[in-house]
Amino acid sequence: MRAAIFRQGQFVVDTIPDPVLAEGQVLVRTRACGICGSDLHAAKFPKQFAELSRRSGNRFGMRDDVDIVFGHEFVGEIVAFGRGTSGRFAPGTTVTSMPLTIAGTTVQGIGYNPEVPGAFAEYIPLAEQMLLEVPPSMDADHAALVEPMAVGEHAAVYARLGGDEVPLVIGCGPVGLAVIAALKLRGVHPIIAADFSPGRRKLAARMGADMVVDPAAASPYAALTNAITPPGYDSSRYAQLTGTSPKPRPAVLFECVGVPGVMQAMFEGAPAGARIIIVGVCMETDTFEPFFGILKQLDVQFVLGYTRDEFSATLDNIAAGRIDVAPLITGRVGLDGVQRAFADLANPETHAKILVEPGR
Amino acid sequence: MRAAIFRQGQFVVDTIPDPVLAEGQVLVRTRACGICGSDLHAAKFPKQFAELSRRSGNRFGMRDDVDIVFGHEFVGEIVAFGRGTSGRFAPGTTVTSMPLTIAGTTVQGIGYNPEVPGAFAEYIPLAEQMLLEVPPSMDADHAALVEPMAVGEHAAVYARLGGDEVPLVIGCGPVGLAVIAALKLRGVHPIIAADFSPGRRKLAARMGADMVVDPAAASPYAALTNAITPPGYDSSRYAQLTGTSPKPRPAVLFECVGVPGVMQAMFEGAPAGARIIIVGVCMETDTFEPFFGILKQLDVQFVLGYTRDEFSATLDNIAAGRIDVAPLITGRVGLDGVQRAFADLANPETHAKILVEPGR
Repeated sequence: MRAAIFRQGQFVVDTIPDPVLAEGQVLVRTRACGICGSDLHAAKFPKQFAELSRRSGNRFGMRDDVDIVFGHEFVGEIVAFGRGTSGRFAPGTTVTSMPLTIAGTTVQGIGYNPEVPGAFAEYIPLAEQMLLEVPPSMDADHAALVEPMAVGEHAAVYARLGGDEVPLVIGCGPVGLAVIAALKLRGVHPIIAADFSPGRRKLAARMGADMVVDPAAASPYAALTNAITPPGYDSSRYAQLTGTSPKPRPAVLFECVGVPGVMQAMFEGAPAGARIIIVGVCMETDTFEPFFGILKQLDVQFVLGYTRDEFSATLDNIAAGRIDVAPLITGRVGLDGVQRAFADLANPETHAKILVEPGR
Repeated sequence: MRAAIFRQGQFVVDTIPDPVLAEGQVLVRTRACGICGSDLHAAKFPKQFAELSRRSGNRFGMRDDVDIVFGHEFVGEIVAFGRGTSGRFAPGTTVTSMPLTIAGTTVQGIGYNPEVPGAFAEYIPLAEQMLLEVPPSMDADHAALVEPMAVGEHAAVYARLGGDEVPLVIGCGPVGLAVIAALKLRGVHPIIAADFSPGRRKLAARMGADMVVDPAAASPYAALTNAITPPGYDSSRYAQLTGTSPKPRPAVLFECVGVPGVMQAMFEGAPAGARIIIVGVCMETDTFEPFFGILKQLDVQFVLGYTRDEFSATLDNIAAGRIDVAPLITGRVGLDGVQRAFADLANPETHAKILVEPGR
């Protein structure tokens, strides 16, 4: 089959062996696969990504010395069935799945795994027990957005929202936009979102942000502090000590950038007692001053991925129109266009999500 | 009155004006005052402490260019009453209070404040409304331990314990020992505690640790992982994905060291899903790899101080014998001995808490 292979720092289109189905697997023809921010990072810093993967128990499988086929945000159609499958899906059914497959009782990651090609390829071997059917009523391509949108769902669950929170989303790339969509579903308002890019701010408003802030022009933290402060609030230590002032609403901040320095900026800008959910995946060493976290009694919750239920619920939300992912799809390329697409994604004005269509 | 004054990097005993009582204040003759880890830090790095204090809204008041009288863990007897006091305390009543005073409706910190001398002095002006009576049945000196022990109570509250947690306390100085005491009160077991010092490990066991670990000889994180792992636990990704393995008990780690690098060690050593409570006060810039927090979905809760209720509950716990602070008091000095006591506290084998007795 044809695949866009990440080889020595470049994407090359070449032919690799078709997947051989293990017990319980079905063969899925890739219809579309999104390019993730982690893919961009892995392609830009393959040594670092491989080293971190190795140090963390080889969870992702990434290596920088062998061919890797990326692609973990996929949708496709079933074209063949392996031994031990149940027959619960008809051939041609459109499906998606969390980015892993199961061979017997061995779970294998999809997306950075030298042993299992990801979905920047014509076919992927998926585990029947992990498949979710994409309803015929929805645009099948939109199912490629289930994976990134499930990240927002998961972050919102870990935010332990009571209902009265004011959320601030720092960074409106695909991760931040997914968080905004999940917050909108939960009815917490106002949703404040910040990004330096006008295009991204427009998308943030479209996904559900009530207020968008350009950090170059105004402080998102000042906007948050303003939003949580009740009328008649008295900040004096006497009022705070004696409990005579109305209380501010709780603040929940979402870090959706994933680069060093953002956490320190959030530590300095966050109001006292805030919860910070780290959704952006920073793969570098970071530096911060704990003292600000201590003084403000901040809570920092790191999150990753999603559960099976969150993934499934996200598909339902997209299928039912509760999340509209259409505005996020800003480009489509065939396998030949992958190298160029990775470069194009550097410009936040032009792109949010580019879909790779191996059959294009 | 006589006071041990921190002046240009040294403690000198000198005479300063007696406090002038503001409305609602009483004059308290200091009986004893503990030396806190923050005092040691402020004396060693006064410029840094003053700079952090300034950058954080001058909450502590510390400056490095003027005289400061330290001392915020105090107990004493009422010797005079100011205007507007209620008369609810008899002269001679033994009292303690959170380390702040109130002049009219102005709250002033005690301990690092150039405008209000702390309790390394013969007298302190306290707010009547903040006073707690020390019951005659208890050793009055033990009330000087209410402040540091309340820090442990507060940390345990923020740990949001459900009852099934296994706690690991990293660092068994006064902060770690206070956390151990608060955990013991809550009946969570086993309490695991780690410190390089044999003396501190002995104190940890005395305060309630069920297992003490010397990190030079064995990994405290391995001990924790072992304690949370249920019989028949299956760590394979298949068992985890399909939910067929019994779940580990939740792990809660307490950082009670407060120096750079400890958080990164905890990030690497903590089991997935752990909560980390940062109780140690690190005043330097710290460095860590967020990726480990992300992979393990760690939650990091920074805490500071205590509430009025926690402070009061801690006095009750000490008075009722539910917390025995006697083993923590390892030395007593007069004002002339403060300089030496600060040096002596560097040795964890000899000392936990030294009480300054201005009347000695």
